[in-house]
Amino acid sequence: MTEQGRQADVVTVDLGARSYPIYIGRGLLAQGELLRRHIRGRQVAIISNEVVAPLYLAGLRAALGDGYQVDELLLPDGEQHKSLQSFAQIMDFLLERRHDRSTTLIALGGGVVGDITGFAAATYQRGVDFIQVPTTLLAQVDSSVGGKTAVNHPKGKNMIGAFYQPRCVIADTAAFDTLPDREYRAGLAEVLKYGVIADAAFFDWLVESAADLLARRPSAVARAVRRSCEIKAEVVTADEREGGLRAILNFGHTFGHALETLTGYQALLHGEAVAIGMVMAADCSARQGMLAGDEARRIKAAVSALELPVQPPPLAPSRMLEAMGLDKKVLNGRLRLVLAQALGRVVVSDRVDAAALEGTLAAGERLCDV
Amino acid sequence: MTEQGRQADVVTVDLGARSYPIYIGRGLLAQGELLRRHIRGRQVAIISNEVVAPLYLAGLRAALGDGYQVDELLLPDGEQHKSLQSFAQIMDFLLERRHDRSTTLIALGGGVVGDITGFAAATYQRGVDFIQVPTTLLAQVDSSVGGKTAVNHPKGKNMIGAFYQPRCVIADTAAFDTLPDREYRAGLAEVLKYGVIADAAFFDWLVESAADLLARRPSAVARAVRRSCEIKAEVVTADEREGGLRAILNFGHTFGHALETLTGYQALLHGEAVAIGMVMAADCSARQGMLAGDEARRIKAAVSALELPVQPPPLAPSRMLEAMGLDKKVLNGRLRLVLAQALGRVVVSDRVDAAALEGTLAAGERLCDV
Repeated sequence: MTEQGRQADVVTVDLGARSYPIYIGRGLLAQGELLRRHIRGRQVAIISNEVVAPLYLAGLRAALGDGYQVDELLLPDGEQHKSLQSFAQIMDFLLERRHDRSTTLIALGGGVVGDITGFAAATYQRGVDFIQVPTTLLAQVDSSVGGKTAVNHPKGKNMIGAFYQPRCVIADTAAFDTLPDREYRAGLAEVLKYGVIADAAFFDWLVESAADLLARRPSAVARAVRRSCEIKAEVVTADEREGGLRAILNFGHTFGHALETLTGYQALLHGEAVAIGMVMAADCSARQGMLAGDEARRIKAAVSALELPVQPPPLAPSRMLEAMGLDKKVLNGRLRLVLAQALGRVVVSDRVDAAALEGTLAAGERLCDV
Repeated sequence: MTEQGRQADVVTVDLGARSYPIYIGRGLLAQGELLRRHIRGRQVAIISNEVVAPLYLAGLRAALGDGYQVDELLLPDGEQHKSLQSFAQIMDFLLERRHDRSTTLIALGGGVVGDITGFAAATYQRGVDFIQVPTTLLAQVDSSVGGKTAVNHPKGKNMIGAFYQPRCVIADTAAFDTLPDREYRAGLAEVLKYGVIADAAFFDWLVESAADLLARRPSAVARAVRRSCEIKAEVVTADEREGGLRAILNFGHTFGHALETLTGYQALLHGEAVAIGMVMAADCSARQGMLAGDEARRIKAAVSALELPVQPPPLAPSRMLEAMGLDKKVLNGRLRLVLAQALGRVVVSDRVDAAALEGTLAAGERLCDV
């Protein structure tokens, strides 16, 4: 693929009858043929939000061309709208516009739009087709691949949802041109995660290419997205419904979620929390004697190289433990954490050592000095 | 199986990894072992309603025995509570009681409780186990088998839902002892449907056994439930997600739904509407020259023998057409109806003759005099 070309890379998520392609490339949104190939009926509902729609909705409609009943619903931007209320709003909308079982929903936006649209598709008339058109780096490499759909509940994120696969994913890397720096870098945290959990060579390449990636050089961006999708597709193929292996995708996330919770989902973007969480997971792995200290420090350095935070905000270890779903009583033998054994190799461990974890939570700026 | 015995008949719904048994027999609710065999975790949530719970909930809890966290949620009785609001109430309840992904939901009640509980199970934390304990004849032979789950929307029934299979179905025929006559007979309409669509010998037996069935003789009831479940299981096995064959289960239902809609879901029970709908479908089949008039009259006579209504309320044919999703313009070639070719054999036809259909809608008390 040339940097300016419009040829799409294709990664296939192999799930038997539910298999689907992920198309990756610059300018794919303008290629209506990709969309039309995966639309089986004559009705299309585009679900987007008020930030993304002004940038891409007109282009998407133009690419679709005539011949469809196209209806649009714009949700407000933000995680707080990934709710059962917004879900009900989509259902009302589809019924008002008389969409039938042959309709196709298109999710145009980031993870929130993708997750809620996927859940709507999973449940509207017991399931209709949907297409993911993720416009953020995070959504392209994470939430739009793998079939997890959900809305939040006041008592917990993603508490209501379904496993439901899209007909295809269209990852137009040109969409990053409009992404704020901070949000783009937060997406790189998930990219780096794929290197840590499954591919040391990819990890090395990411570190070497940090400047190109931060400059959003198209060839580097495309390679980062493609390899991330490949790794996620492999994991999801092996474990569609999160029976076991899929848990490795949560490397850094148990720490990261706790950080998000304790900072009220305001101070840190999800990817930033995951970045710090990966450093903490590397630290904890090293303290358990599972990972060489040198490799833990390489993980921390890579996070830094991608201009992501490496140090958690000052939070009491006891509050972190609680936010991780733990208290001291149940610590030994109860906590499952994804720990690193080497760059490119992680394991799900349910025998996390209490002293190691406490050391990690108290380490502050000395994380990975193990 | 003896009439008083507690041995369960078992019908298996064969869907690969999602296969499950339907246990049928008198007194099964007291057999906690059947339940426990299909509960994998230590948390159980029983969803029931205010009419059924006083009759069976204590027995079910006693049968479950100790060793589980058992929580109960009672919904108000009635189809109007099969709503997104009740669904949200179940989600709140499960989260408040801290049910995790290993929980098992038990639906104790009729079709409303089964459908909404199934949908809750399909979507709580992206899917948890559930067990159907249907307490009405209609639920035992129809809604609890086949994995259709849903809630209603003000703009349409079952508009929001999922295909999601239970871990098992426990059909205790002793539950009919507390069923009002009219509701019990309405369930017989669906039983008769299975004879018409798939088994002429069963149809004949139902007619011969009408007195025993109406008297609720246990051996007759058990046989009726078992054979109905067998036929539904066969159809669902061949077509889990309603791609084609499964449509034959809708024999009589297009007419029936229109009758329900036009009478505001008040005058007729669902089974009664289906009973009339089957007579109308038989009439229409005969008018098309597809079914012998004599066989159409046997269907009508069987409906009568089970003390179910055979004549629709006086409704203008044009209103019926509209409620069936039709208007004159699109009539030819658009309407799909399940029509009978013989007793025990039906087809899904998308070439319904307009004149035949109009004849059926105008026939009134002369239905099947073809």
